Amino acid sequence: MTSLQARQFWTLIANSPKLFELPLDMRRRAAERSESMTDEPRGVAFSPSRPPKGPIGLMAEPAEAREGAAILYFHGGGYVCGSPASRRKTLGHLADAARARAFAPAYRLAPEHRFPAAVEDALRAYEQLLRTGVDPARVVVAGDSAGGGLALAAALAAREKGLPTCAGLALISPWTDLSLRGESYESRAADDLTCARHTLEPMAQAYLDGADARDPFASPLYADLAGLPPIFVVCGADEVLLDDSLMLLRRAAHCRVDASVSVVAGMQHVFPIWAGLIPEADEAIAAIADFILARTS
Amino acid sequence: MTSLQARQFWTLIANSPKLFELPLDMRRRAAERSESMTDEPRGVAFSPSRPPKGPIGLMAEPAEAREGAAILYFHGGGYVCGSPASRRKTLGHLADAARARAFAPAYRLAPEHRFPAAVEDALRAYEQLLRTGVDPARVVVAGDSAGGGLALAAALAAREKGLPTCAGLALISPWTDLSLRGESYESRAADDLTCARHTLEPMAQAYLDGADARDPFASPLYADLAGLPPIFVVCGADEVLLDDSLMLLRRAAHCRVDASVSVVAGMQHVFPIWAGLIPEADEAIAAIADFILARTS
Repeated sequence: MTSLQARQFWTLIANSPKLFELPLDMRRRAAERSESMTDEPRGVAFSPSRPPKGPIGLMAEPAEAREGAAILYFHGGGYVCGSPASRRKTLGHLADAARARAFAPAYRLAPEHRFPAAVEDALRAYEQLLRTGVDPARVVVAGDSAGGGLALAAALAAREKGLPTCAGLALISPWTDLSLRGESYESRAADDLTCARHTLEPMAQAYLDGADARDPFASPLYADLAGLPPIFVVCGADEVLLDDSLMLLRRAAHCRVDASVSVVAGMQHVFPIWAGLIPEADEAIAAIADFILARTS
Repeated sequence: MTSLQARQFWTLIANSPKLFELPLDMRRRAAERSESMTDEPRGVAFSPSRPPKGPIGLMAEPAEAREGAAILYFHGGGYVCGSPASRRKTLGHLADAARARAFAPAYRLAPEHRFPAAVEDALRAYEQLLRTGVDPARVVVAGDSAGGGLALAAALAAREKGLPTCAGLALISPWTDLSLRGESYESRAADDLTCARHTLEPMAQAYLDGADARDPFASPLYADLAGLPPIFVVCGADEVLLDDSLMLLRRAAHCRVDASVSVVAGMQHVFPIWAGLIPEADEAIAAIADFILARTS
């Protein structure tokens, strides 16, 4: 049932150089082009943000933004690459579909900056957003891959600091376990076209730099999630990080947190970022937006 | 975050006799009253069906039914109790919210009728529905608890027989594993107010009557699910059958079937049947209806 467009795109990816096997500087340049084949969101105004005006990041404002509703989005890239600009279109599609302003903050990357630098930056971004007067009950914190893990870590850090909780967490193929315990690293090894244990492990090591891989702020799978808002996850059935979502659902249930996980057959890691290119991505963006709308209305 | 209404209702249940510990005849009578405290669906016409007019069951027709869209709903009751009438209001709420005609067929119960009698009846109900001219691509097969397992079994049986697949499977706290392997039998033992290993095991034994508990038509968790339509599951975080949903999600992903599981904190087994009484049930009915609408439009 996988769409023709997706199958064609997977063939293209399968015949391209494996990004995560490139040297870091090449990988960082390539990460900036991850959305190059996808649709431009229509009716969304993008504006970069820089101090002293605001934190470094990218703002997406849809034409029909609902006043007061906001998305805080953390880009993926294994904690070593990616930038707000590398998820510009994804940010725009989400902002448009959820009719909410969306801000993607920059955060410090490894190996230059080790854990918990990214978590500190993510928490600061949430605090700064609240200081603009936005009601946390109308903020959904989101992210993909490492950014999904970071969204969870930011929510945990906010809870520790006694900050008000956000309205929900919307996660795309979140990397929740830097100890790489998921059995999908093996069961999906032949299916995953972009990620593998041997490519993710060095990124985890670069980020952790000796810290415990099961530190709950690095691997929220091992956190007490109690008190977190409802979690909504979309991931692909063909990715080695599948278990990071399945195990998160089990963990959330154990911690008595509302959680939904949607696994889409035939899909690769972070497939919703290819909105416009593959229909499954469009459907996923719509589903995430439905969650954001329901949580921020 | 569990609603006051839910907490009050759980207190009432906790202080009531444990239904599944009663003798079977009393349990069967009690099962018919499972919806007694819930809201009457408005604008839904119910009509019992009997041969020769049609199969034994209950039809719910909402005021604004979408032409051609249909729900086939299997009631729960551990394969030993329950009836279409015991889920009359649930059927009506779903029909109303999804704007689709909904039919709940009767199926033979254990211990009078052993496995696979229920599966044969469920398959026959699907075949009879298709013979009325309904497009299978606009039918969602649904069910709760044992009826959720039966919905999966019917879809598997339809596939084996070469019948066209339905548009989706909407399952409420499905019982997918009669071998009772889930670790939630232990981890949720203190939280589940209605079900327990010692009450479910005799029901599984009565139904199986010596058949293999891992027969895929008795325990769809062990089936090759390939070719099944998208599966949507809602269950409670506080039920011993939680793992039946979590394991189903893993299995579906392994079999490359689209699947979503939504676990709601603080909720008991088949909580969506208490629509009108607890707000979490209303939200769950709305979510299931959204799935049915999306699949049958």
